[in-house]
Amino acid sequence: MLYNKRTNTCGELNTRNIGETVVLNGWVAKKRDLGGIIFIDVRDRYGITQIKISPDRKDISALAASLGNEFVISAKGKVIQRESPNKNIPTGEIEIEVEELQVLNESLTTPFVVEEDVKANEDLRLQYRYLDLRRKKMMDGLLLRNKVYQMVHGFYAKHNFVEVETPILMKSTPEGARDYLVPSRVHKGKFYALPQSPQTYKQILMVSGLDRYVQICKCFRDEDLRADRQPEFTQIDVEMSFVTQDDVFKISEELFQNIWKEVLDFNLPGQFPRMTYDYAMTKYGIDKPDLRIKDLMIITDISDAVKTSDFKVFKDVINSGGIIAGIKTGKAQDGSKIEITRKISDGYTEFAKKLGFGGLATLKVNEDGSLQSSILKFLNEESIKGLSAAFDAQPGDFILILSGDKSKVLNGLGQLRLKIAEDFKLLDDSKHEFVWITDFPLFHYEEEENRFVGEHHVFTSPKDEFIHLLDSKDRKEIESIRANCYDLVYNGNELGSGSIRIHDSETQKKVFRIIGLTDEEAAEKFGFILEAFKYGAPPHGGVAFGFDRMIAMLSGTKSIRDIIAFPKTVSAASLMDNCPSPVIKLQLDELGIQLKQG
Amino acid sequence: MLYNKRTNTCGELNTRNIGETVVLNGWVAKKRDLGGIIFIDVRDRYGITQIKISPDRKDISALAASLGNEFVISAKGKVIQRESPNKNIPTGEIEIEVEELQVLNESLTTPFVVEEDVKANEDLRLQYRYLDLRRKKMMDGLLLRNKVYQMVHGFYAKHNFVEVETPILMKSTPEGARDYLVPSRVHKGKFYALPQSPQTYKQILMVSGLDRYVQICKCFRDEDLRADRQPEFTQIDVEMSFVTQDDVFKISEELFQNIWKEVLDFNLPGQFPRMTYDYAMTKYGIDKPDLRIKDLMIITDISDAVKTSDFKVFKDVINSGGIIAGIKTGKAQDGSKIEITRKISDGYTEFAKKLGFGGLATLKVNEDGSLQSSILKFLNEESIKGLSAAFDAQPGDFILILSGDKSKVLNGLGQLRLKIAEDFKLLDDSKHEFVWITDFPLFHYEEEENRFVGEHHVFTSPKDEFIHLLDSKDRKEIESIRANCYDLVYNGNELGSGSIRIHDSETQKKVFRIIGLTDEEAAEKFGFILEAFKYGAPPHGGVAFGFDRMIAMLSGTKSIRDIIAFPKTVSAASLMDNCPSPVIKLQLDELGIQLKQG
Repeated sequence: MLYNKRTNTCGELNTRNIGETVVLNGWVAKKRDLGGIIFIDVRDRYGITQIKISPDRKDISALAASLGNEFVISAKGKVIQRESPNKNIPTGEIEIEVEELQVLNESLTTPFVVEEDVKANEDLRLQYRYLDLRRKKMMDGLLLRNKVYQMVHGFYAKHNFVEVETPILMKSTPEGARDYLVPSRVHKGKFYALPQSPQTYKQILMVSGLDRYVQICKCFRDEDLRADRQPEFTQIDVEMSFVTQDDVFKISEELFQNIWKEVLDFNLPGQFPRMTYDYAMTKYGIDKPDLRIKDLMIITDISDAVKTSDFKVFKDVINSGGIIAGIKTGKAQDGSKIEITRKISDGYTEFAKKLGFGGLATLKVNEDGSLQSSILKFLNEESIKGLSAAFDAQPGDFILILSGDKSKVLNGLGQLRLKIAEDFKLLDDSKHEFVWITDFPLFHYEEEENRFVGEHHVFTSPKDEFIHLLDSKDRKEIESIRANCYDLVYNGNELGSGSIRIHDSETQKKVFRIIGLTDEEAAEKFGFILEAFKYGAPPHGGVAFGFDRMIAMLSGTKSIRDIIAFPKTVSAASLMDNCPSPVIKLQLDELGIQLKQG
Repeated sequence: MLYNKRTNTCGELNTRNIGETVVLNGWVAKKRDLGGIIFIDVRDRYGITQIKISPDRKDISALAASLGNEFVISAKGKVIQRESPNKNIPTGEIEIEVEELQVLNESLTTPFVVEEDVKANEDLRLQYRYLDLRRKKMMDGLLLRNKVYQMVHGFYAKHNFVEVETPILMKSTPEGARDYLVPSRVHKGKFYALPQSPQTYKQILMVSGLDRYVQICKCFRDEDLRADRQPEFTQIDVEMSFVTQDDVFKISEELFQNIWKEVLDFNLPGQFPRMTYDYAMTKYGIDKPDLRIKDLMIITDISDAVKTSDFKVFKDVINSGGIIAGIKTGKAQDGSKIEITRKISDGYTEFAKKLGFGGLATLKVNEDGSLQSSILKFLNEESIKGLSAAFDAQPGDFILILSGDKSKVLNGLGQLRLKIAEDFKLLDDSKHEFVWITDFPLFHYEEEENRFVGEHHVFTSPKDEFIHLLDSKDRKEIESIRANCYDLVYNGNELGSGSIRIHDSETQKKVFRIIGLTDEEAAEKFGFILEAFKYGAPPHGGVAFGFDRMIAMLSGTKSIRDIIAFPKTVSAASLMDNCPSPVIKLQLDELGIQLKQG
């Protein structure tokens, strides 16, 4: 196809180019016909430039008049000063006086108008993804993603990490989420799995002496999708030999400092704060505390303070091993009071009930420091004093108390804290609060499956002082084991997770036994890594960061679908190319599989 | 685990560090016990450093004596001058006088010795990949791969390309090779496919206005593997809008110039030579000519020259539309004569017979310029003169002639050319001959399937002057259509392939019809791209380069398995983790599939 090829993009011409003859190739973003003079906004990835077709150019003005939105055109002409400049765009002071005009491709009327304030629902936008991506906001998301992608490559390369591509077709070893399976044609009846993460490969690379590994890679989990999950997602996957947790933290902090500086021009602290899992759970009721509201509404356990009271509700809870705990609202970061009216308070009671609590006890601190609450009548003076002291109750404070099973109470208060923060708009998006959560449990007991599972994954090492408990049969003891395991939390979101790994087969076998794998099953599933550990495996550890979520947060969008070029819906479908889709029988025959009967 | 953490790697200490106390962490590569004094080579990714344990350090010399190869150790001590330096390694002038020694992990006796000149067969090396990767040659392969990987990212980023991650779970549209399929659990009876290439996605990105796309990505083909293929492979995938073939060539040439300069310190020409497909086939009998022997042994068609001869063999061939053609050996690049003895010549006759020819006609050019051959007696004088002139026969030349079906003769001579070049070691590995092959046919007729298929793929555009033939029903006419399609060939190997694409639905539909898809089938398989082309698709084109093969060539290895961290065997299996493998019935049940009965 012959056409005038662009001399410039649509984002770069300005008054310095006046007088030049240029060619633009791009899309018709807008056309205005002012009784003869036709103005067209021509758009490409780089910007928008206005072109002007005079009525005396009879040869092309008919063509110009016939152009519809999203037609692809080539326009040649002279750069001239614009009569009414648009100061909002870099090219706004010039326009092109068109001398030659060609249509490179036409466009049907688009199913939705390509504009920033798009009206279409997301399904339609996903079906016509190529139109949605023409919107500046969406294109900017892809450009930001690419920018950070390149930064991450460059950062780790500078630090002597080696990027290694690990296999996508790997062994199925489901332990946790479901694997996506790929039937083998050559080995009928056998299957590959798509990696949930390259965990075993990166550890094998450490055994091979690679020393510092990184990969920005696709991972796959066949889970029922929550709104913010995708069946395939991208992670920054890192592993290092001869390191401690501190080494992993240091290099990771530098990465995020660089990115936040470059993208948001924000200076993160030289070292990120750290908090143990137990502390986070006790004080924030969650393992990913949102520290944008720092020490606001942290949880206070008042079981001790009120234990002498005769209040039956509290007594029963304490006797059955539960706790009584609460949060107080106090003042917001800006010093303003968080005013909990009766109506709002009733709403929180409802909220607590939905979480499965019988009710929510609330107390107001009067101006004279005295408490006001319907529960006071059940408490003795010692308990009231103790409660007041435990919360350091100040005039104007509002206290919310839950009682019951410990983890349920902590979780409930954690959720209440976030709800209040949201209701009162306390979560300032200009804040960037990173925190490392450390010392996670190694296992938790999965009641449904009636067995232990790895809290993070089965390759995490226990802290030295807990290693002897790997031989225990006691549930409480096993639950008490703490691991060399850490999460990176950002504004209340988990951005990454990692650990110092097990590097000897004996410890690894003990962990497999605790999660219920017989030695035979362990050998069948993970024999290669147990074997590798016998040939000089170095101490090693690493971390993986969720790349999609990081980009979504950097770009300020709520949905990771916005910063993935071709995302799937929550039912794991692609609306654009209509997949998954049926395949012909021959394909299945060749793979030695068939659809399940009945 | 507590241990002395390294202060240095094993590759960096030298005489400038003498007197410093350092810690090394690494693997025991070699141990020599010289009657008390123990020397150990400690190895990591960065190099090897010798450590020395004196017999008077009784506390550690017993431990040192107990160390086996591949044990992981931590050694602390003073850097001292070495008595007998090893000039071959950067650390060869120093050693470490050990003061503290710890074993970080033990190693069983390895199944093969970790040394450059490895004796083990490839299967064993693949099973214990982590040991094989400890060999310097293998680790260097991964390091080189990473270096080029980072260069490619950086190169395209500098040129304003946007790296976009396209989906791994996509729609199955097999056209050519077999897809790997992934059953959908959520949509039972439906399947995803792993991408054979992100072709449709990158074209959709052009429709979205991304303008310049790049991705270093994994692609998958479920084909019976030849020795140098992998079920998953990596390609550099590029697409650009508003470009011609020249634009694609220019940016690609710059990429290869940079890489060859950086890695091999070799200056490639500013512009790579170009050759049409028809020329390459006619002159080299192959579409990937090895130009390390440039114009040596190019094919000469002598059908015309000998057409007046009465030789029945030639006559029959000409009458049935075939050709008579040959190559002459002449002189090698260094000026030496390529001496074809009777015995060698007989070997080539055998070679020709294996290719399905009745025989091979050979002629020797005598010192006086006269020809010597058993076929001369069948030729008239005019034919002999014509033949001699056609080959520009010079004393000492040796001429090999085949006759028969045109494409078979050209192919046979192309193979003979390469065989002679190999036999006489004419393919100089220090040469780096790139060439673009252009103007491929758009289709070829697949006799087995009794239909046309795309010579490259179905999105390739025909050259303007052939577009009208898309409406033809005539096989010859359709075969004559030439495409805006090109391969990049390096030293006789295809390194990449690309084209200027179709960008309008009507042309695309015609191509689908020619390959035998009904409009309904085309809509079902490729409806999304036909649809996308209706909404302002720009002219666009691109290219994809095989990354694995490029790295193999840069590193001088014959096998791409050497430069892939965890390759599969020719039966698409991984010997290390033993995959593909059986899965449990529950996994298949959840996916709604079962193994095919009977």
